Amino acid sequence: MAEASTVEEAPSLRRRLHIQLAPQAWPSTGLSPLNIAACLLIVTSAALAVLETERGFIEGYYRPVVLAEWVFASIFAVEYLVRLWVAGEDARYSGPFGRLRYAATPAAIIDLLAILPVLLAIGGSEVFLLRLFRLLRLMRLARLGRFSDAMTNIAAAIRSRGPELLLSLGAGLLLLVASSSFLYLVEGGTQPQAFGSIPRAMWWSIATLTTVGYGDVYPITPLGRLFAAVTAITGIGLIAMPTGILAAAFSDVLQTRRRREKPGLTPLS
Amino acid sequence: MAEASTVEEAPSLRRRLHIQLAPQAWPSTGLSPLNIAACLLIVTSAALAVLETERGFIEGYYRPVVLAEWVFASIFAVEYLVRLWVAGEDARYSGPFGRLRYAATPAAIIDLLAILPVLLAIGGSEVFLLRLFRLLRLMRLARLGRFSDAMTNIAAAIRSRGPELLLSLGAGLLLLVASSSFLYLVEGGTQPQAFGSIPRAMWWSIATLTTVGYGDVYPITPLGRLFAAVTAITGIGLIAMPTGILAAAFSDVLQTRRRREKPGLTPLS
Amino acid sequence: MAEASTVEEAPSLRRRLHIQLAPQAWPSTGLSPLNIAACLLIVTSAALAVLETERGFIEGYYRPVVLAEWVFASIFAVEYLVRLWVAGEDARYSGPFGRLRYAATPAAIIDLLAILPVLLAIGGSEVFLLRLFRLLRLMRLARLGRFSDAMTNIAAAIRSRGPELLLSLGAGLLLLVASSSFLYLVEGGTQPQAFGSIPRAMWWSIATLTTVGYGDVYPITPLGRLFAAVTAITGIGLIAMPTGILAAAFSDVLQTRRRREKPGLTPLS
Amino acid sequence: MAEASTVEEAPSLRRRLHIQLAPQAWPSTGLSPLNIAACLLIVTSAALAVLETERGFIEGYYRPVVLAEWVFASIFAVEYLVRLWVAGEDARYSGPFGRLRYAATPAAIIDLLAILPVLLAIGGSEVFLLRLFRLLRLMRLARLGRFSDAMTNIAAAIRSRGPELLLSLGAGLLLLVASSSFLYLVEGGTQPQAFGSIPRAMWWSIATLTTVGYGDVYPITPLGRLFAAVTAITGIGLIAMPTGILAAAFSDVLQTRRRREKPGLTPLS
Repeated sequence: MAEASTVEEAPSLRRRLHIQLAPQAWPSTGLSPLNIAACLLIVTSAALAVLETERGFIEGYYRPVVLAEWVFASIFAVEYLVRLWVAGEDARYSGPFGRLRYAATPAAIIDLLAILPVLLAIGGSEVFLLRLFRLLRLMRLARLGRFSDAMTNIAAAIRSRGPELLLSLGAGLLLLVASSSFLYLVEGGTQPQAFGSIPRAMWWSIATLTTVGYGDVYPITPLGRLFAAVTAITGIGLIAMPTGILAAAFSDVLQTRRRREKPGLTPLS
Repeated sequence: MAEASTVEEAPSLRRRLHIQLAPQAWPSTGLSPLNIAACLLIVTSAALAVLETERGFIEGYYRPVVLAEWVFASIFAVEYLVRLWVAGEDARYSGPFGRLRYAATPAAIIDLLAILPVLLAIGGSEVFLLRLFRLLRLMRLARLGRFSDAMTNIAAAIRSRGPELLLSLGAGLLLLVASSSFLYLVEGGTQPQAFGSIPRAMWWSIATLTTVGYGDVYPITPLGRLFAAVTAITGIGLIAMPTGILAAAFSDVLQTRRRREKPGLTPLS
Repeated sequence: MAEASTVEEAPSLRRRLHIQLAPQAWPSTGLSPLNIAACLLIVTSAALAVLETERGFIEGYYRPVVLAEWVFASIFAVEYLVRLWVAGEDARYSGPFGRLRYAATPAAIIDLLAILPVLLAIGGSEVFLLRLFRLLRLMRLARLGRFSDAMTNIAAAIRSRGPELLLSLGAGLLLLVASSSFLYLVEGGTQPQAFGSIPRAMWWSIATLTTVGYGDVYPITPLGRLFAAVTAITGIGLIAMPTGILAAAFSDVLQTRRRREKPGLTPLS
Repeated sequence: MAEASTVEEAPSLRRRLHIQLAPQAWPSTGLSPLNIAACLLIVTSAALAVLETERGFIEGYYRPVVLAEWVFASIFAVEYLVRLWVAGEDARYSGPFGRLRYAATPAAIIDLLAILPVLLAIGGSEVFLLRLFRLLRLMRLARLGRFSDAMTNIAAAIRSRGPELLLSLGAGLLLLVASSSFLYLVEGGTQPQAFGSIPRAMWWSIATLTTVGYGDVYPITPLGRLFAAVTAITGIGLIAMPTGILAAAFSDVLQTRRRREKPGLTPLS
């Protein structure tokens, strides 16, 4: 209807909005002003959602929080409708069912889930956590400009050494089972609460292999401590291994790129 | 006997089973369907063995667990017998004593140990842990396809820098003795339980050098804390050293491989 | 005034002092004797400022500490005035308002802030912490000789892979929000003090992702521990990622430098 | 005297012993049988010295321990005298005062210190720790064969990037002072025991920056936790930085070596 009444100038406005809203349509590097504003709104709204889980905060600032919620929900609702309207500019979503196809994309569903609960006044203490899903949209927007190159490099490095990284993970899992079994056999009798079964001992084993070391559980018998020392030292190896693989992979990706960009001097041209 | 009565078609069936069961015999990359099924069964059976150590689990699901045990044991028993029968296809295990030679391989012994206790109804709470040894078989199967390349790369990197990695370990052990001795001298009087001897202080030293830091023992005197700070900082070096060595070794392995695959342009052919 | 009365010999003294005090003016590599003395004084004075915060120390050594304070303040006051006077030698601070322009530089303001409180006898227990700001001046002086090269290398490596490092940080922040939200949902009911809100759970999440693992808070439910294990393992990845990126970047910087310094043999000159 | 009476056959025996005892004189790679035995004795004796600090061990095995002490002391005393006698074979220690010059080398002093207390029956509980110094001799012996190359590589890598590594350490120290000062200001009032002065806060800061995280002290105020989170994250950078530098340095050392060993094809020979 609104569309019909603005037949003359609509294409121009929709086009201009499309250029602002669709990251791929923006001609220069980086994000359009509207998308920068959207990013800031998403981050602020997510930060608010995080803070709202703190009882003290919501009790102290009940009114401004509810107000902010409504403001955010309204802005995102308008943004949702505008994106739905503008989607027609995109070749993928043109045609009679184009809008429906756009509304069925994961991005649009995330956007809808993030506003519907507030608009429909659905309560429940965890519903507003849905807004955190919006942070996923930042990842999509991050695939732009200089970050796009960086993401391609990282993805290329990880993919090129995928089997080596998976093997490291596999070795880590075997080590996890082995050290948990040892500690279960050695410490299970002394500390049944912490090492009374292999799944229980795994909690300790994870904390040791990743060098987190909470210190809520640890072996107390000499033999258990010996095994724990071996586990901790091999844990260093498990950190060094993927780090070394990734370092070599990044080095490789950078060199391959450079060689492709500057193909070098052919010996005899 | 069964062998004798199926003289005509046996070669064909045994051959087909051999191709399915022996990883080297499978023509295409990856694992054969039968070996994939064996891998899944091993993982599931190991996971069950891990869970069975938890008293709550076994008390809640006693009957299904015993049933699953028997099912797994039967399947693995059949697998064992089939592998024994099929071993004749392999040139290494052919001839009159071939089966015996196969049965004496570490892989076959592990397989037998993993099923015998259940079949012979030998009790004891730790016997079923033998099934975890089966996980070692996964390592053998992992030496295939794309993972085989990855394993070769990792092994080549570690071997090529073996002396440097051993030196890092040696430096770590010297540091372990040195920091334990210092803390024993400085904190031994104040905290005899934790630092009253060098072997006791080593437990703290390992936790600090590997940056695990359980926090069950830590120095409390100013001098002890000074030594602990130095220990923790050199601990960073002990992590950085092997990581850097491995990174350079991987880089080296990748470049050598590439150079060998694409030997480059000979300047003047 | 003092300046006017020493018209004849001043240029020579001022020039000589300028060469001693301005790091860029010193002809040979390294620092001039006067600047080395200044560095030592800064470090000693900062060490004293650190020690003074310890009540036991100041009560035991009240008189020598106050004396040392006055000695340091006097030396630094003289240094400030000399630097102000000598600034005229520098082309940037010559002319009628040159001294004022020098006094408005961040370095000069830090110098003034570090001595004024003592000279004006402004009390307050934290005022003397201002002297720690002087440590920043060491960074400026460190940009010399062999360290200058090193700093250029480090800065070049970080800048060349800036987007990749920022992406790692961004991925870390997303992981922080995700793991905190999970733990809040899973453990919030059991441990309201530690996981009763996402900001509270973030404290645990930071300690786990950075593998610090204080152990003051940790999950106790099986599901919480499962998520914690996943968080700790991805934390390893978050350490491995920037390390690998930095290693490749340093490698790249070194090779580019070498190629520029020794441009290689031209194939056919 | 003994020397004089064995004029005829002494050179031959002394020469043979010299070849066995001086690592440089041994013709083939690795260690001579006598030096391997010496290494094993040093390690065993050091392990015994470590174990002796444990009261339970010495009370349980008093007689065998004292016996082993005497056996070790006697063997090392004989070794000391033999080395002194054989030193004359070495060009550096020949001549009239050659023996004295040998006895004044750090290695010989360490050897003497490790046996004198036992032989002179000097008591005191810490005297036998002197034997741990003997472990330093292992480092000297490690400079052989394949390990010699490895040590040269490691030393070359560290030296070539010395300024960068020192800068990382310097940045770490600045960060240590900065984070300790912040936590002192923020948490000092709430937890005077742990953060009541900057030196006290440094204990926490070291444990956090190195990601050891004992958990004996940690901030409890929101602002303190925020600063602690920033400290922990920058701590990751402080680990990643030297690791990356070392990785690049090792890579560089390996490539330079290879280029020197195989100088490559000269374009037009």
